[in-house]
Amino acid sequence: MTSIKFYQDILEQEISKLKIPEYPSHLYQPIKYILSLGGKRLRPVLTLMTCDIFNKEVSKAIPAALAVELFHNFSLIHDDIMDEAPLRRGKQTVHEKWNVNTGILSGDAMLILAYQFFEKYEPETFRRLAILFSKTALEVCEGQQLDMDFETQDQVTLEAYIHMITFKTAVLLAAAMKMGAIVANASAADQDNIYEFGKNLGIAFQLQDDYLDVFGNPETFGKQIGGDIIENKKTYLFLKALKNATDKQKIILQKNISKNYSAEEKIQTITNIYKETGADKATLDAINNYTNLAFTTLDKVGITDEKKKMLKELGKGLMQRAV
Amino acid sequence: MTSIKFYQDILEQEISKLKIPEYPSHLYQPIKYILSLGGKRLRPVLTLMTCDIFNKEVSKAIPAALAVELFHNFSLIHDDIMDEAPLRRGKQTVHEKWNVNTGILSGDAMLILAYQFFEKYEPETFRRLAILFSKTALEVCEGQQLDMDFETQDQVTLEAYIHMITFKTAVLLAAAMKMGAIVANASAADQDNIYEFGKNLGIAFQLQDDYLDVFGNPETFGKQIGGDIIENKKTYLFLKALKNATDKQKIILQKNISKNYSAEEKIQTITNIYKETGADKATLDAINNYTNLAFTTLDKVGITDEKKKMLKELGKGLMQRAV
Repeated sequence: MTSIKFYQDILEQEISKLKIPEYPSHLYQPIKYILSLGGKRLRPVLTLMTCDIFNKEVSKAIPAALAVELFHNFSLIHDDIMDEAPLRRGKQTVHEKWNVNTGILSGDAMLILAYQFFEKYEPETFRRLAILFSKTALEVCEGQQLDMDFETQDQVTLEAYIHMITFKTAVLLAAAMKMGAIVANASAADQDNIYEFGKNLGIAFQLQDDYLDVFGNPETFGKQIGGDIIENKKTYLFLKALKNATDKQKIILQKNISKNYSAEEKIQTITNIYKETGADKATLDAINNYTNLAFTTLDKVGITDEKKKMLKELGKGLMQRAV
Repeated sequence: MTSIKFYQDILEQEISKLKIPEYPSHLYQPIKYILSLGGKRLRPVLTLMTCDIFNKEVSKAIPAALAVELFHNFSLIHDDIMDEAPLRRGKQTVHEKWNVNTGILSGDAMLILAYQFFEKYEPETFRRLAILFSKTALEVCEGQQLDMDFETQDQVTLEAYIHMITFKTAVLLAAAMKMGAIVANASAADQDNIYEFGKNLGIAFQLQDDYLDVFGNPETFGKQIGGDIIENKKTYLFLKALKNATDKQKIILQKNISKNYSAEEKIQTITNIYKETGADKATLDAINNYTNLAFTTLDKVGITDEKKKMLKELGKGLMQRAV
């Protein structure tokens, strides 16, 4: 079985070879910088892997994979400005290292550079990739907007939350895979099924992220445990707990208790409510449901059982954060 | 002769019919807002007019024209954030009416929406339009970056300045025209010549803007006379004056004299230096040179003399700000 590492190595090499212009340096240096911060390159890996699975040379999918990676990094630059995030992968964010204006403009340039990778394909494929890309990019913008809107909304339903994470996170994973299928000339049905597989896996992945933020192993999670609780984020855990909560628990969940509690006490108190209301278990159930939904769709895809197994291993690996 | 008004009316109608989504409203309302602020719609007019001139139904060029107009408005939203501009066409800018985050994200969405208009064309045309669009969009970003860089640079050559305004302003006018030619299936040579016409006219247009900012008629110019002088902008007039200046004039031009002079005195003093150094005349010469360069290129385009005359009238109209 081809390992994730195989695709990651190809991508690292391709990214290091990218010809980003030198001048004007304030426009292009931040692009080189954020691309150099590394990461798992999960999204472009999915593009290469999907192309491979549909029996086309992996090299054919490289431009599409790079478009996906550049788009993802564009969204990180702009999201980090909006979230006022100081750090990204343990390093200064672009707007911190330079300034907000540089972050805005370099991000814009990066979005345009992403589109330019499709120029490597002949017209029909170019058009299909660009159409999927634009649709996805707009959905990611909508997801980001909804995420910001939810911060100040009292009422957020679980359905609205799933819609938000679908757009903000899952559709890019889905589109990354579908692009690999498009490049490989897979059938329309296979393209759609692989998209659904990626989308449901993406939803499960984000719910898992919510879960691990509270119940993860501090040594392997990579982020501070309880960060979402401290920031009063309306995660799946929070919304489910609120739905099941007693009046007393509701008051604790809804009012900002940061004033009367230390960070540690707040995390402990809210975590207990997540357990008492069964929100922890319900989140695990939801993760399983979306993972199973992904695997069921996968069964419909016209590839060998061995390849299905490979994608399932990838899915399980993502869920265990082994990837 | 078909008047500008004819194309403007088509565009206003098409813009009013645009199906911008309702939800999430914080993402899409700002897009509707900035499009509603009006303006001359010069860039998309050029797209429709060029298509018309190459004998293709104007309606065929509408999606490309709208892509150009959306891109232009995207760049206005992001530029206004970077320039901290409170007003646009006499109304609040997007980041003022909402906030910076909304401006960033709505701008991003608008850039993506611009690309989506090309989906109306069949693959070959789609590809040609998108390639030109991405190249141009990236150049506009570079132009904006150079403009910001120049603010803090001591040494800016006239050549560097012309390069900056070419990218920031002229290439979009050029590309707007070339897109009309692409949609109309004009020959490659005609496409290139019409691009050069638009580019040189665009440079002349921006130099004219610099000139009128100082020497324009306050009643017809629309902006405050001397605004560039107050903001210490390195315009063509300024750079030319600096090049020709005596040591004494150089000191006045280079040090920020705002502290010792009232705004009116500063405008008067600098305006006098522009005259004494011949920068006023040199700027008029440059405007004429670029206009003539545009007209010379136009002579090579394979269209009737009547149509060439129409484009020359447009050019002259732009130079007299009669359009």
